[in-house]
Amino acid sequence: MVNETQHTCSASSSSKSDGGSSSGSESSKDSSRCSTPVLDADRHERLREKMRRRQDSGDKWFSLEFFPPRTANAAVNLISRFDRMGAGGPLFIDVTWHPAGDPGSDKETSSMIIANTAVNYCGLETVLHMTCCNQTKDDITGHLQKAKRLGLKNIMALRGDPVGEEWEEEVDGFNYAVDLVKHIRNEFDDYFDICVAGYPKGHPEAESYEADLRHLKEKVFAGADFIITQLFFRSETFLKFMKDCQAIGITCPIIPGIFPIQGYHSLRQLVKLSKLEVPQEIKDVIEPIKDNDAAIRNYGVELAVSMCRELLDSGMVHGLHFYTLNREVATTEVLKRLGIWNEDPRRPLPWAVSAHPKRRVEDVRPIFWASRPKSYIYRTQEWDDFPNGRWGNSSSPAFGELKDYYLFYLKSKSPREELLKMWGEELTGEESVFEVFTCYITGEPNKNGHKVTCMPWNDDPLATETNLLKEQLEKVNRRGILTINSQPNINGKPSTDPIVGWGPSGGYVFQKAYLEFFTSSEIVTALLKVLKKYELRVNYHIVNVKGQNITNAPDLQPNAVTWGIFPGREIIQPTVVDPVSFLSWKDEAFALWIEQWAKLYEEESPSRMIIQYIHDNYYLVNLVDNDFPLENCLWQVVDDTFELLN
Amino acid sequence: MVNETQHTCSASSSSKSDGGSSSGSESSKDSSRCSTPVLDADRHERLREKMRRRQDSGDKWFSLEFFPPRTANAAVNLISRFDRMGAGGPLFIDVTWHPAGDPGSDKETSSMIIANTAVNYCGLETVLHMTCCNQTKDDITGHLQKAKRLGLKNIMALRGDPVGEEWEEEVDGFNYAVDLVKHIRNEFDDYFDICVAGYPKGHPEAESYEADLRHLKEKVFAGADFIITQLFFRSETFLKFMKDCQAIGITCPIIPGIFPIQGYHSLRQLVKLSKLEVPQEIKDVIEPIKDNDAAIRNYGVELAVSMCRELLDSGMVHGLHFYTLNREVATTEVLKRLGIWNEDPRRPLPWAVSAHPKRRVEDVRPIFWASRPKSYIYRTQEWDDFPNGRWGNSSSPAFGELKDYYLFYLKSKSPREELLKMWGEELTGEESVFEVFTCYITGEPNKNGHKVTCMPWNDDPLATETNLLKEQLEKVNRRGILTINSQPNINGKPSTDPIVGWGPSGGYVFQKAYLEFFTSSEIVTALLKVLKKYELRVNYHIVNVKGQNITNAPDLQPNAVTWGIFPGREIIQPTVVDPVSFLSWKDEAFALWIEQWAKLYEEESPSRMIIQYIHDNYYLVNLVDNDFPLENCLWQVVDDTFELLN
Repeated sequence: MVNETQHTCSASSSSKSDGGSSSGSESSKDSSRCSTPVLDADRHERLREKMRRRQDSGDKWFSLEFFPPRTANAAVNLISRFDRMGAGGPLFIDVTWHPAGDPGSDKETSSMIIANTAVNYCGLETVLHMTCCNQTKDDITGHLQKAKRLGLKNIMALRGDPVGEEWEEEVDGFNYAVDLVKHIRNEFDDYFDICVAGYPKGHPEAESYEADLRHLKEKVFAGADFIITQLFFRSETFLKFMKDCQAIGITCPIIPGIFPIQGYHSLRQLVKLSKLEVPQEIKDVIEPIKDNDAAIRNYGVELAVSMCRELLDSGMVHGLHFYTLNREVATTEVLKRLGIWNEDPRRPLPWAVSAHPKRRVEDVRPIFWASRPKSYIYRTQEWDDFPNGRWGNSSSPAFGELKDYYLFYLKSKSPREELLKMWGEELTGEESVFEVFTCYITGEPNKNGHKVTCMPWNDDPLATETNLLKEQLEKVNRRGILTINSQPNINGKPSTDPIVGWGPSGGYVFQKAYLEFFTSSEIVTALLKVLKKYELRVNYHIVNVKGQNITNAPDLQPNAVTWGIFPGREIIQPTVVDPVSFLSWKDEAFALWIEQWAKLYEEESPSRMIIQYIHDNYYLVNLVDNDFPLENCLWQVVDDTFELLN
Repeated sequence: MVNETQHTCSASSSSKSDGGSSSGSESSKDSSRCSTPVLDADRHERLREKMRRRQDSGDKWFSLEFFPPRTANAAVNLISRFDRMGAGGPLFIDVTWHPAGDPGSDKETSSMIIANTAVNYCGLETVLHMTCCNQTKDDITGHLQKAKRLGLKNIMALRGDPVGEEWEEEVDGFNYAVDLVKHIRNEFDDYFDICVAGYPKGHPEAESYEADLRHLKEKVFAGADFIITQLFFRSETFLKFMKDCQAIGITCPIIPGIFPIQGYHSLRQLVKLSKLEVPQEIKDVIEPIKDNDAAIRNYGVELAVSMCRELLDSGMVHGLHFYTLNREVATTEVLKRLGIWNEDPRRPLPWAVSAHPKRRVEDVRPIFWASRPKSYIYRTQEWDDFPNGRWGNSSSPAFGELKDYYLFYLKSKSPREELLKMWGEELTGEESVFEVFTCYITGEPNKNGHKVTCMPWNDDPLATETNLLKEQLEKVNRRGILTINSQPNINGKPSTDPIVGWGPSGGYVFQKAYLEFFTSSEIVTALLKVLKKYELRVNYHIVNVKGQNITNAPDLQPNAVTWGIFPGREIIQPTVVDPVSFLSWKDEAFALWIEQWAKLYEEESPSRMIIQYIHDNYYLVNLVDNDFPLENCLWQVVDDTFELLN
């Protein structure tokens, strides 16, 4: 089952070394080698390098700004929005810093944790804002150290709004953003990419437009890598500003901040905060329609599109920064109309990558977490090395404890009432559980007319790839083979295949058929008899909640079940059935019965006891058909098993 | 081009762990993991474990004894014999110790170096004999340390023949083999497997048969792992001896020493040395035919076969040890008639493995040395780690210097006169060189009627696999594309395929088409124009002797060109086109023009100048067609190049 998150996969550029590159020496010690196949240059570059590469290639890009939400539920929704908007291919997102909201804390709504989630769990290049006024050096350094530890690599250095009217400069304190830029460079050298704010009309508190330009130049010369501007209403405003910057020697990228007007009130509030003047021609349009949200949004989209076109057509602008206000529709529409929303179906690997620097080399994962990639990232976050090419090479460090699997970004997006409608207000036996699994597979409504759009082991509807197996899956789930993960066999499809493809173009991808399910001990007994006949063609691992483990795998080696062959590279084998990590997955998979399903019901209730019975007595089974060029035999194995039982 | 050496590939046995193997803990830290896919259990077991496994499986085996030759030429021939007889699948070979021949030295004829070559270059499990009488502890320890350093793991501990008639025991000296056994165990703990000699009729110098049995028991209890017996003429002799050994508590394997009579004089000499009595019935047959070598050998084979059958049929004997006298025919015939000569076409990997313990995990090599595996092993002998799964992971240590490529086991087996007949007494131009390459490919005689059976880059006739490409290779060599290495593309053939298969059964093997050749700068110029059209489908590396290097490979990553998919395993990718090691190979490939070919001719002679011209001006080119499922496009590339030139 392939995760749906999609990433831009940039074609690797070919270089050519010609002439005298070797002096004929025997030694190859000095040569630089990659330790892992670079499937996606994006994963290895820092933000400023990505910007430069995009500028060189003439490839336009965009970025998205979000603010931390107020409640945990809103945070769960924001993370889903990251996944959805991440699919459009932003170069980065940024998360604002709310000094009043304990922004550096471990709260699920803090700026730090939202940025952490974006980079680690959603795989997005992320810029964390940070303000400095009214803060001590130690506080700031602490925040920066924490950001670094979490894998954040980019900081937007801001002054922030001074508290109270009577603000005065502090000697040796952080008075301006430039102080923060200097501090970051002093304490962290070149580790972070630093962004600073530019004001196309000059900062409202600056003595003059020119003085503000000089402040900006100071920030850049102190070590900032690029500039994002405050919003503005006319493209000329930005283009003039950019020329003025260049005239005084500012050469770094300057990214215009775009604010698609989405409603009357949000516009008024923003204008008040930023002390900007709304041009009369805009006011004239908006005032008459101020109570018609849809009309204002349409107008805002129109306005943003035409301004962005002017900017891009100027030839001076390569990227656009969007103030989303945490909303999806208007920004997405602007991007789609501009043609830079790039929902590239190509994936660098068959699973959603994480953007933490230490995971850059990660190119193999066990198949078990295919539908729970965030859980996998969470449970392996303490690892120092990531299995790099071959799973067995790693020293197989422990998986993280399960106690935190209620972590906010692993929470079901559906509330309890919704889940009860899908999974049954009242279960009458194991068969009613079979029914839930079957409805999830078929997409048909259950007997109360509700569709089952998620399961404890999968928070999303069925993956496209799984649809290929729908008919067989339906048949077996009806009879108590409760499938939670599967993939068809693939014998060399192009890497650009829209359903099963991944990696750079020009390659071929392969899969061994895989099937994972819960089932009763009665079925397991028959299954084991049937499996004897298939010998080593089918590898199996069968385990119950107590850890009783039955397998025909000759040793503790992983079995590669997804691999790809690409031009000029070693073979990539990103998905394995690993017998060791299966035992860690088993704990999670069994726990989900109780934590996500049984606990929906009253203690001692029959429904809860049915789920508890399955948890205590069923086995978790995985099957691999090693003979990938032949027709998948796993359905035959299941058929034979049912036949034996009859 | 696949090396012809063949190895037994034992099927891996499947184990089954059932019940309570995991306590449900999250941690998998304690689990034991293989760091590399075990393709061949043989490579990971020590000799005594292999013996035990064969005994348990009921699989009969044999071993072969050789003595070090007197001359370097004879050593070259012996090494070829190791390769040929190694193909029959001996469990081990052993090399005798000649105290008079400086046996521990670095001379190419020393026991130490012959054993070193067998284990490292021929990949044979090897037992080195060592005698101890008249030697100091320091000498012995030095020999053992050297043996260990060279990767030898097995010692046959012997007393040796005292020098002179008046031999007396030395106090604290090595007087008996048991002293050597104890010394090895004291100084090297369990590192070596130790073999000792048994005398089915009792040692000629022993007080009695019973006293000799007691000495043997002492040797075993001092730490010997198994026993090889002196030759004998009747199976009853051995079977009685074996029962007597067991009766006094000797339980280790006892391997009968078999001596196929091969000639009248060798028999007499051996009998004299070993102080054995030849039974009258044998004398009666031999005396009348003593001048008819063929008749004696036929009789010897007959006798050996029937005795071996009796031994095997007894159920007490699992392996047979052959005194070959460095001859091939008689022993091979006995083994074939017994049905234990096991020329298994299956190969654990596509290249000949080395038996050095530190190379046990080696599972990937650059394709360049495919026809010169011994050179590759030699040039990487100082490496501490072997690329393990992925080439790029290794720190790319330097290749050994070329100064020793005249090393005896890399020498051509053909003398100078032979080479001149094959490669031309007198060259008249580059075309006469094209002609030599073409004749090597076609197998047709050259214009002087001589077949070209070897080339400087390949000491053996064309590999079976290369025959698949014969027609195209002929065509291009005629026109100055001088091929030295190639492989066809393979899109998933069974691992048991007799020509391209390797690895355990039940798998599939794949290849990308590969072509490597020398050619003129004129052809290279046209080739580069043609290659532009193929973009990333064809990767190329083009280099001249000075190291000018032209490539379209995006970085220094290796390209996997041979890989295999097996049940329950990770993907194995044993052959790569590695851009870094290509530059080391280039030095060797260019040097072979001069060292092996140009130097056949007088200095300043036209023939020598032609080869020198090619060496100085031609390019070495390698091409990979990445699109392995399609028809190999490399021939089209070459055709297009010729067309462009016309």
